[in-house]
Amino acid sequence: MKRSMYAGRVREEHIGTHITLKGWVGRRRDLGGLIFIDLRDREGVMQLVINPDTASKEVMATAESIRSEYVVEVTGLVEAREQANPNLPTGAVELKVEAITVLNTAKTTPFEIKDGIEANDDTRLRYRYLDLRRPEMLANLKLRAKVTHSIRNYLDELEFIDVETPFLTKSTPEGARDYLVPSRVNKGHFYALPQSPQITKQLLMNAGFDRYYQIVKCFRDEDLRGDRQPEFTQVDMETSFLSEQEIQEITEGLIARVMKETKGIEVTLPFPRMKYDDAMSLYGSDKPDTRFDMLLQDLTELVKGVDFKVFSEAPAVKAIVVKGAADHYSRKDIDKLTEVAKQYGAKGLAWVKYADGTLNGPVAKFLTDVTSDLTTALHLEDKDLVLFVADSLEVANTTLGALRVRLAKELDLVDNNQYNFLWVVDWPMFEWSEEEGRYMSAHHPFTLPQEETEHELEGDLSKVRAVAYDIVLNGYELGGGSLRINHKELQERMFKALGFTTEAANEQFGFLLEAMDYGFPPHGGLAIGLDRFVMLLAGEDNIREVIAFPKNNKATDPMTQAPSLVSDKQLDELSLQVEGADQE
Amino acid sequence: MKRSMYAGRVREEHIGTHITLKGWVGRRRDLGGLIFIDLRDREGVMQLVINPDTASKEVMATAESIRSEYVVEVTGLVEAREQANPNLPTGAVELKVEAITVLNTAKTTPFEIKDGIEANDDTRLRYRYLDLRRPEMLANLKLRAKVTHSIRNYLDELEFIDVETPFLTKSTPEGARDYLVPSRVNKGHFYALPQSPQITKQLLMNAGFDRYYQIVKCFRDEDLRGDRQPEFTQVDMETSFLSEQEIQEITEGLIARVMKETKGIEVTLPFPRMKYDDAMSLYGSDKPDTRFDMLLQDLTELVKGVDFKVFSEAPAVKAIVVKGAADHYSRKDIDKLTEVAKQYGAKGLAWVKYADGTLNGPVAKFLTDVTSDLTTALHLEDKDLVLFVADSLEVANTTLGALRVRLAKELDLVDNNQYNFLWVVDWPMFEWSEEEGRYMSAHHPFTLPQEETEHELEGDLSKVRAVAYDIVLNGYELGGGSLRINHKELQERMFKALGFTTEAANEQFGFLLEAMDYGFPPHGGLAIGLDRFVMLLAGEDNIREVIAFPKNNKATDPMTQAPSLVSDKQLDELSLQVEGADQE
Repeated sequence: MKRSMYAGRVREEHIGTHITLKGWVGRRRDLGGLIFIDLRDREGVMQLVINPDTASKEVMATAESIRSEYVVEVTGLVEAREQANPNLPTGAVELKVEAITVLNTAKTTPFEIKDGIEANDDTRLRYRYLDLRRPEMLANLKLRAKVTHSIRNYLDELEFIDVETPFLTKSTPEGARDYLVPSRVNKGHFYALPQSPQITKQLLMNAGFDRYYQIVKCFRDEDLRGDRQPEFTQVDMETSFLSEQEIQEITEGLIARVMKETKGIEVTLPFPRMKYDDAMSLYGSDKPDTRFDMLLQDLTELVKGVDFKVFSEAPAVKAIVVKGAADHYSRKDIDKLTEVAKQYGAKGLAWVKYADGTLNGPVAKFLTDVTSDLTTALHLEDKDLVLFVADSLEVANTTLGALRVRLAKELDLVDNNQYNFLWVVDWPMFEWSEEEGRYMSAHHPFTLPQEETEHELEGDLSKVRAVAYDIVLNGYELGGGSLRINHKELQERMFKALGFTTEAANEQFGFLLEAMDYGFPPHGGLAIGLDRFVMLLAGEDNIREVIAFPKNNKATDPMTQAPSLVSDKQLDELSLQVEGADQE
Repeated sequence: MKRSMYAGRVREEHIGTHITLKGWVGRRRDLGGLIFIDLRDREGVMQLVINPDTASKEVMATAESIRSEYVVEVTGLVEAREQANPNLPTGAVELKVEAITVLNTAKTTPFEIKDGIEANDDTRLRYRYLDLRRPEMLANLKLRAKVTHSIRNYLDELEFIDVETPFLTKSTPEGARDYLVPSRVNKGHFYALPQSPQITKQLLMNAGFDRYYQIVKCFRDEDLRGDRQPEFTQVDMETSFLSEQEIQEITEGLIARVMKETKGIEVTLPFPRMKYDDAMSLYGSDKPDTRFDMLLQDLTELVKGVDFKVFSEAPAVKAIVVKGAADHYSRKDIDKLTEVAKQYGAKGLAWVKYADGTLNGPVAKFLTDVTSDLTTALHLEDKDLVLFVADSLEVANTTLGALRVRLAKELDLVDNNQYNFLWVVDWPMFEWSEEEGRYMSAHHPFTLPQEETEHELEGDLSKVRAVAYDIVLNGYELGGGSLRINHKELQERMFKALGFTTEAANEQFGFLLEAMDYGFPPHGGLAIGLDRFVMLLAGEDNIREVIAFPKNNKATDPMTQAPSLVSDKQLDELSLQVEGADQE
């Protein structure tokens, strides 16, 4: 029989009609001779009733044999429920079953199919098809599809052309680590999976496409963290002839559309703009969460004269005030915060509590002379806790920035229904890499430097600023973009500043430099991390919750056991040997 | 200055307005003191005029310096053209330039930016960004975006959920050759890029998604042919609880929508259905081009008695009649056809010409006795050419099928504006592989056998029929699908029939078999080859013409030189050695 509708969509208006439903058995209850079955499909749950007085023997026998997660087809009459369940969309009706067929049976599942799971991550991933049956996971994946649908419609309306770029590309060591794909035809040669279609989309601008977009998988072989996956999805955009401002406006429109169509929220445009330097100095982060204050305050000058070398001789002394938290944080609690501070490179964490007009705590005695100045500068009120970091400006900022976020979570200062979007602009072009011992691109080597700082490419690289912008949501980097270099000479200077020899630049990026010989237009764009965006919209805190089949934190799929060993024949065809493997 | 509109969109209604355009310089002509410039952007071409009597010295100087493919910004007044060009959408107007700025210069391009290119393929691919500037290529890529847009809207309306499936998956040697991706974290282990998300989408049905789609890249490491690429794009669909017929109807609706929205063509639904056996016997192909007749005719019985062993003793003698072609095909021409026949495994090609009531040609003398029967059976008319293949039935069919297509092309029998869609149904489950010396899946091992032939899984495999269907357009396989197995026992029998031991089946597909323990619903789906579909809609004969950055026939990108050598550090991190590479 053909299904009449989804079980989750049966309503009072269907009372008196005969319908056929197909779905999974949730709970079965035998109550006063009657059998009640919750029938679940992707749109919800509907109650089935089998009455031994009216049901055929066959129906009764089948109903009695049915267990959780069996797949069934049922036909019956929609009736009003005696006791309506107002918490269930189908709660006013039930189906009086007249025929029932088992389409497939099920063993007892390793965990119950319901919201709020307690199974561990690997069990969930191993039985992902069961995990995805849980309504909250299905809702997350539906939300994801709704978001991409909304984005596509918006960009199609703006005449962006959806273009697919290649997955088998050239390895470019600048940036994160590539996933490689050995070539069989060209032995010893490798493709790389794209970390992003950055150069390709620039070439599409060179080809005159004017407006490009793609929702596309990207790949980075990095060590995994909570919100990282080996493969992730990017909403990738590029435009020609537009200003930084115009690209940001298009992005704002996109986000406003998504927020409205998926969450019913009208966001206020334009989004606030914050300079990178201000973000670092006020929030200690290049992706500030502005849903709460607790701003970083600079006390370097104020404590210059105190008799406490840790403060008076530090390059920077900064503080955050945790309002009214003095009694909530014991010494032990603060020791924990100190551990956090050390993870961010701080040598320690100083603190005072302000109560009854005086400062208390280990370092209070050094601050007696400046108590009044401090109280004024920090707007201290009774029971405030003050945390200080005295260190390099960078360490002071990032440490307090991290503590700020942690404290807000601990103290529940954040309104989870608030969506604070903001642009961080005016970025440095380069950042110093301790690991590599050199300046590296803060974004990528194709970013346009701000004209007035361009000359520092041959001078002080720390002073070169980029025409770059990040879009931030609630303390997460949602995406980022920039105007790009379109003149060969400037691109060559950029490679040189990054330490490339002419030969190395040509070897790696010669095709891009050559393309700049042929009328490369001014262009710029942006990419949004789709996984993270959907994660935030879904109220989740791990992108795995919005990806159908993610990898675990060992980059493994517990279900299929990928990655796996492959046959000698496969390796032979690729002329590859695994080191340490048995040799014949 | 902000661009007012695309150059290709300026019309008579804009006369008298000042506008700013940005784009590429096509031709520049100096005529009677005036300078005419064709300004090109993605929407078309617009004529610029610089008049030395009215233009500033600066504008004149810039205009004189400008060469083809320079990127310029121009501002001016839209005026009516003295001599309108009715062949150009902008032909009624021209822009009287008041300001012009060169945004970037260009060297002489390696080929001219115009339709109908003569550069060779590798030059086109090496400078793909220039190749894509040619209006016909841009139009192809725009068409592609329009097709996917149309497909997505259709499937979204039908409540299909767009779900992204993983690219880093498990290698399954059954099927074509996988592209492998070495894992760094799990040394010696490999991911595989998906040949299709077949099992994954089945698991989504198990998860209760009910209707899934994705437009997704797939990968096969095969030797390349005209319409093959290492990576290709699939419109991938899967549904639960639907019949073969219902899935075909959804597909027909999808194709009708695309045809209407991209070509303005109303196709007639439902599409014709043809059994696989009929397609082979009448057209000699499992993807018949039904835009022309020239059907294969079976003469085995008719020639049983003739005194010509090649015919009388052959397992099958089949023929096609090339209407009125007798005078167009010399012996030499037919020799060429014979060569083709041999490529398909035929030992030779017999032929006769029918003229003035008699048969002529080398084998005519053997057919004297059956001339009248032949004439009647084949409905011969004056000047017909008849081609015979006497061989196994399979060789006779495929050889004549190939000749049929070739002759139709040579004789221009095909209407290129006709789109003949058709379903080929009732497929064999297995096909014999000479190479492997065993039966292999004609589609894949998850295809549901037709119930009445299921018992032959333990009997004669050639008799098992599949609930499978291919959608064919103008002689191309556009896509294919099937109902799938959802019961573990049947899936195990299928693996066994394919020669898997229990261990091998579990090793490869254990996760799928396990999933069948937990209420796997009846399901089925279909996948359409997007590249090929767009190629046919664009009237191209190679999918490279509808892919932005394809590989050449050595699976190489002449622009980036991918695949390329990678550093020792990269190989070391993966614990890989390339055989034959220099050892340190």
